Amino acid sequence: MSHSSLLDALRGVVGPNQVLTDGDLDAYHLDWRQRWRGRSLAVVRPGSTAEVAAVLRLCHEARVAVVPQGGNTGLVGGGVPDESGQQILLSLTRLQAVRAIDRANLTMTVEAGCVLQVAQEAAAAADLLLPLSLASEGSCTIGGNLATNAGGTQVLRFGNARELCLGLEVVTPRGEIWDGLGGLRKDNTGYDLRHLYIGSEGTLGVITAAVMRLYPRPAARMTALAACASLEDCVALLQLAQARADAALTGFEAMNTFSLALVRRHFPQLAQPLAPSPWTVLLELSDAQDEAHARTVFEGLLEAALEGGLISDAAVATSVAQSRTMWQLRESIPLAQALEGLNIKHDISVPVSRIPAFVRQADAALARAFAGARLVNFGHLGDGNLHYNVQAPEGCTAVDFLREHEHAVNAIVFDAVAAHGGSFSAEHGIGALKRDELAQRKSPVALDLMRAIKAALDPAGLMNPGRLL
Amino acid sequence: MSHSSLLDALRGVVGPNQVLTDGDLDAYHLDWRQRWRGRSLAVVRPGSTAEVAAVLRLCHEARVAVVPQGGNTGLVGGGVPDESGQQILLSLTRLQAVRAIDRANLTMTVEAGCVLQVAQEAAAAADLLLPLSLASEGSCTIGGNLATNAGGTQVLRFGNARELCLGLEVVTPRGEIWDGLGGLRKDNTGYDLRHLYIGSEGTLGVITAAVMRLYPRPAARMTALAACASLEDCVALLQLAQARADAALTGFEAMNTFSLALVRRHFPQLAQPLAPSPWTVLLELSDAQDEAHARTVFEGLLEAALEGGLISDAAVATSVAQSRTMWQLRESIPLAQALEGLNIKHDISVPVSRIPAFVRQADAALARAFAGARLVNFGHLGDGNLHYNVQAPEGCTAVDFLREHEHAVNAIVFDAVAAHGGSFSAEHGIGALKRDELAQRKSPVALDLMRAIKAALDPAGLMNPGRLL
Repeated sequence: MSHSSLLDALRGVVGPNQVLTDGDLDAYHLDWRQRWRGRSLAVVRPGSTAEVAAVLRLCHEARVAVVPQGGNTGLVGGGVPDESGQQILLSLTRLQAVRAIDRANLTMTVEAGCVLQVAQEAAAAADLLLPLSLASEGSCTIGGNLATNAGGTQVLRFGNARELCLGLEVVTPRGEIWDGLGGLRKDNTGYDLRHLYIGSEGTLGVITAAVMRLYPRPAARMTALAACASLEDCVALLQLAQARADAALTGFEAMNTFSLALVRRHFPQLAQPLAPSPWTVLLELSDAQDEAHARTVFEGLLEAALEGGLISDAAVATSVAQSRTMWQLRESIPLAQALEGLNIKHDISVPVSRIPAFVRQADAALARAFAGARLVNFGHLGDGNLHYNVQAPEGCTAVDFLREHEHAVNAIVFDAVAAHGGSFSAEHGIGALKRDELAQRKSPVALDLMRAIKAALDPAGLMNPGRLL
Repeated sequence: MSHSSLLDALRGVVGPNQVLTDGDLDAYHLDWRQRWRGRSLAVVRPGSTAEVAAVLRLCHEARVAVVPQGGNTGLVGGGVPDESGQQILLSLTRLQAVRAIDRANLTMTVEAGCVLQVAQEAAAAADLLLPLSLASEGSCTIGGNLATNAGGTQVLRFGNARELCLGLEVVTPRGEIWDGLGGLRKDNTGYDLRHLYIGSEGTLGVITAAVMRLYPRPAARMTALAACASLEDCVALLQLAQARADAALTGFEAMNTFSLALVRRHFPQLAQPLAPSPWTVLLELSDAQDEAHARTVFEGLLEAALEGGLISDAAVATSVAQSRTMWQLRESIPLAQALEGLNIKHDISVPVSRIPAFVRQADAALARAFAGARLVNFGHLGDGNLHYNVQAPEGCTAVDFLREHEHAVNAIVFDAVAAHGGSFSAEHGIGALKRDELAQRKSPVALDLMRAIKAALDPAGLMNPGRLL
């Protein structure tokens, strides 16, 4: 089939207005960090699962590659086409229905293109909680969240996107529809295809809908900040908080001095209730009972931590507005960093117990190699996940530092991660950005298994080629 | 390679005493329900992961099939050899070390042959909780639990074995070792091989070790019984309990009148605190604070349920001994059933919201087909998982009823399950017993995907052939 007859056939399936080939297609071709700009044969926007299946059947027949895309908020270049102009960009954004909310089963069935925040709001309207929450929730989609196994701020209690998903609807590379939308909490009937597709970054097929777990909304949410002298104390505080609050502990974020100094510099209007200390921890409790109970648990916990010498000071939010400001401090770090200038970002994880040793090793190695390099170290400590970012030394031009040293900085950080049994991509995935890193750093046995799976499920190699593997 | 030179080579790897070919091998060849008795070329008992790898390399070279086995407590004939005498029975029971407990990371690294109860006790000795808990915990192994994705009584809060596993060590069919024992809570570096191996029933390789999640031990555990007039009320009670107790609700088991009547008949010494009612629910709270708090939550919940008309009566255990007796009532049902005579067992799941409609449909269809058939209906209602068992009508010979009608009874039950979007095997898996059912009832697209994966990862078809697929 020629490309032009493929395009005609695609127009027949989705309608002529949903096959875009002209005009400004940057919304689809350019990733939002503007690191990758591709071109496509066409942007195709199916309106239903059946149309997705028909599109994939046609592309398979024509042996044309397909790049699935949700909200185009990925951080690793996994959702934009390459520069060949020979790929079909398959946009899922028209599949946006919340198909069903099942209150007794605590589940919702959502289409892939549904924006995360819309899904959250639909759950809230049923007085339930969809706990998946990340910075891009206003534009990222459920399908993208699952294709990349998104993390976010509520993983400590609720897990990653993977753990929140009870079922999938998937279109295979040959255009068949697998309806795995059971919504069952127990189902031992064969290999778990759901978990294979989650995190496969569009390389094995296209997720078109999912059943997501919902939870009762907490009666109260409360936030506190605590000052720690060391990462060891942060880890000990985490253990204490988990023992005393168990599942009610829904947030545990750590921020080093420099992270909050940057926030102070660039967002002076944000009140910082604690004096600077080596580490500041944000804790969040979600209480099934009420605010008074949450306060009792927090006060008991923080008193015990003060007595045990794990923290030197603490502040419990006394209002929802104060809680929000505390979270804003945490969430302003990436923006404050951007205002300070380009930096080298990492999204790494190690076992929680190894965080102090990892940071010691990486800090020392970077200081040896790049005197004055500044570390914006913060993140989801409760998940072992740090955004360990490296900012050029004061006075250096950030762009030059990045260009000259990014590779060497990455090698130092990733070597330290490997030495502590960690992962060089905790929540952002592989995409185009970390594909070489994966090939170099992942165990050869695991890579062989992955390649065998890819060859088995996408023998023609048409699904998001050049990404992940 | 001839069989005798294979056996010689295996003796060279694991030592002559660990290759068993003579004497009474029923412990390995006969499943514990005594439904399948196989024979093997030899029972091989490696003592380390490296030995498992060497054994698989030799078997691969000789093109001899391998049946992995843990505690031999499976319910579907997945862990015993077939009758050919041509398969190697690979017993993992000598790999039983608890390799490490990481308190700050809340994980333990355990070898596949470690008995579940031993692992539980090791966690408890570190003042932590390994929440996986099932009837066979005194003899089942972690490797078997993961290979079959075991369920049990704590799934409501903690998930299945799958959700409790953070990493695996696996030997591939060709004898390579994949070390995936990171113990990370976030790791987005490629396809999730861990979840593919979990629940694959030994058909893709051999799990030799795992990293399991641990939790703080609850400060208090408390149990209550409540009487419900209908399954609709049970489901509404579950919703209320989840909203009020959230993650502290760790158990929610339902039992119909006949289940508890059988317990009363065969275990008259077990006190039943409530008068018979259509449904009796066992609720368990695990409280991070203390017993007094758990009691307050229970009292508030049960009062609200009484006021709302969801329950007609309730009893909260006032001691650990009383809690234990309540659980004993629940756990004695299978034994009481066995004392009553053979019965046709089912391990099904449907979305929680569909339980009442499913039971109505299945009850009515069975009553039409088999007047007087008695239903022992009980199970993990909070997970949508019922053990919907059918006992012969009073006066019928149980053995005859089973022989004549098992197939027809299964068809009625599984058709009703399918009509409500459920699974015919919620927690026990497929093995040999339900292989035909899988081929008939699973979606053809899903079956094709599974077969492609099997062919890709075990092209020679040597891993547990004839099981699952």
